[in-house]
Amino acid sequence: MSEQVVLGVDVGGTNVKAAIVSVSGEVMTAVSYPTDAEDGPERFVQRLYEQFIKLLQKSGCQLTDVLSVGVGLAGFLDVEHGYIEEAVNLHWRNVAIVQLLSESLHLPIYLDNDANIAALGEAWQGAGQNAKSVLCVTLGTGVGGGIVLDGQIYRGVSTMAGEIGHITVKPGGPLCNCGRHGCLETLASATALVNMGVAHGLHSPSGGTANAEEIFALAKAGHRDAQQVIQELVNWLGVGLGIAANLLNPDKIVIAGGLVNAGDALMDPLRASFAANALQRVYRSCELLPATLGSRAGMLGAARLAIQGAALENSVL
Amino acid sequence: MSEQVVLGVDVGGTNVKAAIVSVSGEVMTAVSYPTDAEDGPERFVQRLYEQFIKLLQKSGCQLTDVLSVGVGLAGFLDVEHGYIEEAVNLHWRNVAIVQLLSESLHLPIYLDNDANIAALGEAWQGAGQNAKSVLCVTLGTGVGGGIVLDGQIYRGVSTMAGEIGHITVKPGGPLCNCGRHGCLETLASATALVNMGVAHGLHSPSGGTANAEEIFALAKAGHRDAQQVIQELVNWLGVGLGIAANLLNPDKIVIAGGLVNAGDALMDPLRASFAANALQRVYRSCELLPATLGSRAGMLGAARLAIQGAALENSVL
Repeated sequence: MSEQVVLGVDVGGTNVKAAIVSVSGEVMTAVSYPTDAEDGPERFVQRLYEQFIKLLQKSGCQLTDVLSVGVGLAGFLDVEHGYIEEAVNLHWRNVAIVQLLSESLHLPIYLDNDANIAALGEAWQGAGQNAKSVLCVTLGTGVGGGIVLDGQIYRGVSTMAGEIGHITVKPGGPLCNCGRHGCLETLASATALVNMGVAHGLHSPSGGTANAEEIFALAKAGHRDAQQVIQELVNWLGVGLGIAANLLNPDKIVIAGGLVNAGDALMDPLRASFAANALQRVYRSCELLPATLGSRAGMLGAARLAIQGAALENSVL
Repeated sequence: MSEQVVLGVDVGGTNVKAAIVSVSGEVMTAVSYPTDAEDGPERFVQRLYEQFIKLLQKSGCQLTDVLSVGVGLAGFLDVEHGYIEEAVNLHWRNVAIVQLLSESLHLPIYLDNDANIAALGEAWQGAGQNAKSVLCVTLGTGVGGGIVLDGQIYRGVSTMAGEIGHITVKPGGPLCNCGRHGCLETLASATALVNMGVAHGLHSPSGGTANAEEIFALAKAGHRDAQQVIQELVNWLGVGLGIAANLLNPDKIVIAGGLVNAGDALMDPLRASFAANALQRVYRSCELLPATLGSRAGMLGAARLAIQGAALENSVL
């Protein structure tokens, strides 16, 4: 018998990343293709089926080698019932996605949100490997978070656990999309960094708004305002990480998202800010690390979710 | 064979509470006696042994019915090695307490800190019963916290999880005993309430500093400053609970400590403040409840810890 495999699927607003992954974690073959969410969930499922068959052929695996499918997507999900309540970036509401997928693929389907899936990926194969408890924080348009305890996603009672982007770090601070004020994501997302750059009159070399990468480049070149903007983001992020660590006492915190490309220019001051905001016994037992899987975290995390689901169902692994 | 039992011990700065508790949760017999911590750990252990023998006689149980002993105390503990690093209220440092106790009692000993033990007690027999995830917050001299997931204490990597008293809710706020600023316990403990009362010129009927109970009585009688002081505490506590709930997504938050005696005068405004500070999907799935076990929570939680420890060792339950 060939090694058993799963299909891991990361559904982004722009692209879908899918891979056939062995239960031991080897990516047999992977693909990225446009989501085209505006065509609707049925067409999305049909395209995923076509891609799945192509992936299988390329990987040399048989359909009978495939245990299950893991799917990650951004949105409010009812994981228990396999239901998308609202996926803002796909403009989908009330979709029985697991039912649609299982009718097409005839395999067990496991679903979770993008932040949880990315955290699981990093905990399995990335910076969070070999940790008992991992908090993964993704700095992007917003600030996402996922918690992995003993190798399993910790979801809480209504799959909302790990919402570090919406912890209040500055009562009365900037208005957040969630309707409240001073949430971490209003002060420490990539978007917040760019907005602070605008407020400080930073410009891109082309004359427009400086993006996050350009702000880090300006800071490296000695631009005081750029340095200050980064320090401000780091200060707030340190408050948020300190709060989360005092509650969760994790052994690893993994920082993901595009900002991590800045490397030590982000991580060094962030470690100092974290240390200033967590209890000594908490930060001394916690490694703060940049993510290592990049955009593959979701796909790998989805594969891991599929493997865990199949193991639970079949006790085969 | 009689029903199997455990000894649950809650070591406070002033009194020790100990009970023989059956594995089904019935308190067979209980005692409270002075801790006299200044006599040192060896004398403490000797006294506990004497009390244990008396309790056994009263309960009608045999020594062979006793599975194990659970011990809760305030301090920095190395739970894995059964070691007190520092117990401030007992003035003990570097005590191999589990070794001392097992040499005297000849039973397996299980140790944890007071906040975790109280949380476990409330989750087992108190307000947190039947919940998947419970956060228990004790408002006292400080603000303590314990997390119980699926009936087990969640300790984190260095037994510091649940330290909600030291999450930053007001960056740059009042100086905390931990050396940082704006920790929840500087703004929302019973001590903080009394201090705010002093700042607002509140007096006890006897003319001295108004204690927490007197501040609630003043507020009930229509005293504006007393009402404002309570609202301020409630506002900060709501920020802290909202933060913790957005991260943990628990189904129950239990509020313990003497302030809970104020009843709805505390809980009603606190529920409103919590709702304003948590994501909608988080607070809608979370009950915020007053503790029901009072000062028995620690003793019962210690008993539960002993039962769980014995079950794990012996698979007898």
